[in-house]
Amino acid sequence: MNNNSITRRNFMKAGGAAAIWIPAAARGYTASEMKDFYSNGEMSIDVSKWELDTPALCVDLDLLEANLDKMAETMSQNGIHSRPHAKTHKCPTIAHMQMDRGSVGICTAKVSEAEVMFRNGIDQILCTTGNVTPTKIARAMRLRQQCQGFIQATDSQKNARLLSEAAVAFGVIADVVVDVDPGIKRTGTPFGKPALELAQLVDQLPGLRFKGMLCYDAAAQHVVGFQTRRDQTLERMVAATETFEAMRSAGLDTEIFSGGGTGTYNIDHEIEHLTDVQVGSYVFMDAQYIAIGGKDDADVYSDFSTSLTIMTTVLNDQYAGKATSDAGAKACTINQPWPLIKGESGMTYRSGSDEFGTITYGESPSKSYRVGDKLEVVVSHCDPVVNLYDQVYAVRNDKVEAVWLISARGMSA
Amino acid sequence: MNNNSITRRNFMKAGGAAAIWIPAAARGYTASEMKDFYSNGEMSIDVSKWELDTPALCVDLDLLEANLDKMAETMSQNGIHSRPHAKTHKCPTIAHMQMDRGSVGICTAKVSEAEVMFRNGIDQILCTTGNVTPTKIARAMRLRQQCQGFIQATDSQKNARLLSEAAVAFGVIADVVVDVDPGIKRTGTPFGKPALELAQLVDQLPGLRFKGMLCYDAAAQHVVGFQTRRDQTLERMVAATETFEAMRSAGLDTEIFSGGGTGTYNIDHEIEHLTDVQVGSYVFMDAQYIAIGGKDDADVYSDFSTSLTIMTTVLNDQYAGKATSDAGAKACTINQPWPLIKGESGMTYRSGSDEFGTITYGESPSKSYRVGDKLEVVVSHCDPVVNLYDQVYAVRNDKVEAVWLISARGMSA
Repeated sequence: MNNNSITRRNFMKAGGAAAIWIPAAARGYTASEMKDFYSNGEMSIDVSKWELDTPALCVDLDLLEANLDKMAETMSQNGIHSRPHAKTHKCPTIAHMQMDRGSVGICTAKVSEAEVMFRNGIDQILCTTGNVTPTKIARAMRLRQQCQGFIQATDSQKNARLLSEAAVAFGVIADVVVDVDPGIKRTGTPFGKPALELAQLVDQLPGLRFKGMLCYDAAAQHVVGFQTRRDQTLERMVAATETFEAMRSAGLDTEIFSGGGTGTYNIDHEIEHLTDVQVGSYVFMDAQYIAIGGKDDADVYSDFSTSLTIMTTVLNDQYAGKATSDAGAKACTINQPWPLIKGESGMTYRSGSDEFGTITYGESPSKSYRVGDKLEVVVSHCDPVVNLYDQVYAVRNDKVEAVWLISARGMSA
Repeated sequence: MNNNSITRRNFMKAGGAAAIWIPAAARGYTASEMKDFYSNGEMSIDVSKWELDTPALCVDLDLLEANLDKMAETMSQNGIHSRPHAKTHKCPTIAHMQMDRGSVGICTAKVSEAEVMFRNGIDQILCTTGNVTPTKIARAMRLRQQCQGFIQATDSQKNARLLSEAAVAFGVIADVVVDVDPGIKRTGTPFGKPALELAQLVDQLPGLRFKGMLCYDAAAQHVVGFQTRRDQTLERMVAATETFEAMRSAGLDTEIFSGGGTGTYNIDHEIEHLTDVQVGSYVFMDAQYIAIGGKDDADVYSDFSTSLTIMTTVLNDQYAGKATSDAGAKACTINQPWPLIKGESGMTYRSGSDEFGTITYGESPSKSYRVGDKLEVVVSHCDPVVNLYDQVYAVRNDKVEAVWLISARGMSA
């Protein structure tokens, strides 16, 4: 018997059998059952998020759409574009929602993510990480053969030459941006002369077309306090702007100057010449981003809403002051701040154990959980949490509207 | 063009085209290419682990087999059995290797893992976590219908009654063990009277057959120092033994007394009446287990070898004192101690960034990495790392012998 390929008819039979002994309505629709229901278009089964088998990853559609709308409006008001990063959601459906709201393209961290996005209808893709091995360069060039809107980042002259050789061998003109390091010294080429010389080389090499530069200040995104974050961002990005201007002065085609992110989305338009912002986490938000504080609310970064949650079930309530749930590190990661229990107070959640979550009650907990109860937690850090799941349930008013495949889950290569 | 379904013939064509421009032999076989090669039995292609597209999860077969053999021999010498935990490897192939070496069964943490193991030919399975929702109880009973060797843990009287109702409804006699808490207060019922009364209830309820108890002291496994670990384990498990004896005195059938793990495998036989050890991590080992020290080596827990590694590629070498690789938190988790660079000294590895690893050089690094170089890291904490990958490459003398599917990857429900 294969539970993973259960059909709706078989499930209804099983449900009928189950009704013999289950006291209340059946609760706990499994991922495979849900995927079957929704791929058959049977939305009428009316499943609540509280009825899902757990752990289950959910996105609240009202909150997600509000986040998407707010970002689109802010970008429009600020006169720049968004080029959202798909490393956050790894989900083509959400990428399409971003494109539909006017994003100029989608970023990916890995060429494997780019392949998945293209196979699922996204045709404007910027791979922000350099591909340095022959295999990955070949994959990028094969993708370029199919996808006119594919842009590849590079950060060294040697790599640019390899890209050029590959582009010629594959018979393509590859669009390339130079990745400039904002001072993190992780990826990218240094500001100024090295960046300019790399841009000039890309411009001259056969098979390549220079499109501009990217400079993503990862370290700026989680700086606590809006003013500190703004000051640091604008100060650090002066050299990026100067580098971009040097490229222009050298006569290069500088169509793209991409950077910024969710933590600086309402700061990035102040960076001179910046064309688009690589926002990612704004679609979901998480406990880490809440903690950085916002422009209008110093304590909570409330510009966007926490749309991404995990449904979990209480497994044990026998010990004073605590309860154990079924969502541990393998369902939540061990990123901190720990997941937040949605709608409840006076208790904390920890996902430090591989298999189990721990609810610890404080002095005045809003609730006391019993075995079988479900709770909903806001994720700690959205990107690696999404990467643990094959699907996310799209929920509105607690009802599941769709099952979205996280098609680029596990695409770390 | 779909790179995920590339055939060997297409790949060879692509390889031919690539040979026009790639200076050395093609390096970086992708997961889909490797799976195609090996499912077709084409072992002759002779791929080295250094030629794999990265990040890639590898297990060294000589080390894995030595670990498996050592555990089997130790158990045999000590007069107890092993019932290895599949939550570690999530891989049916490895479960079969354990059964072939005399293990009495396989443990799983989730019913979904149990389903996967059974579908892949494992027929002695103990689900160590209680299933508390109607759906999960139904899944366990459906599995019991098919699998005569399936045993379910329970830790409360209410749950035992639900299991009984379900077993009757599904027309099975379900084998059940009582999960006893060793003092962690996470899952399980307390020692002594509560455990005994639960055992007696299970024994009496229709549809259930009492098989014994389990008591897994997760907290003992990583206690640093062999003597401290031994003293703590034996002291804490006295109450478990007394509870087991009380069950026997009450006339219950106490076939199973399961507990222990990789950290205490050479201590657990001293726990009176213990029948089998739920060892998990010994197959792979990791940086966390190395740090606890062993009986013969106080500094390094060297009883088993670190067979599980991640191959990663250097992406950036432009900044003094460091290099950036392509295996970050999404490929390595953020568990600590951080991954260890195999075969090298004078440098450290961190996987704190979602997408990137950081190599930091100390005073006398054994090597200086250049872009495109590959390195191999020993994983930080094997269980959650395995859960990030769809496959593991089985390697002997650096050559890939097989591609093993991690079929229970992501099975957290």
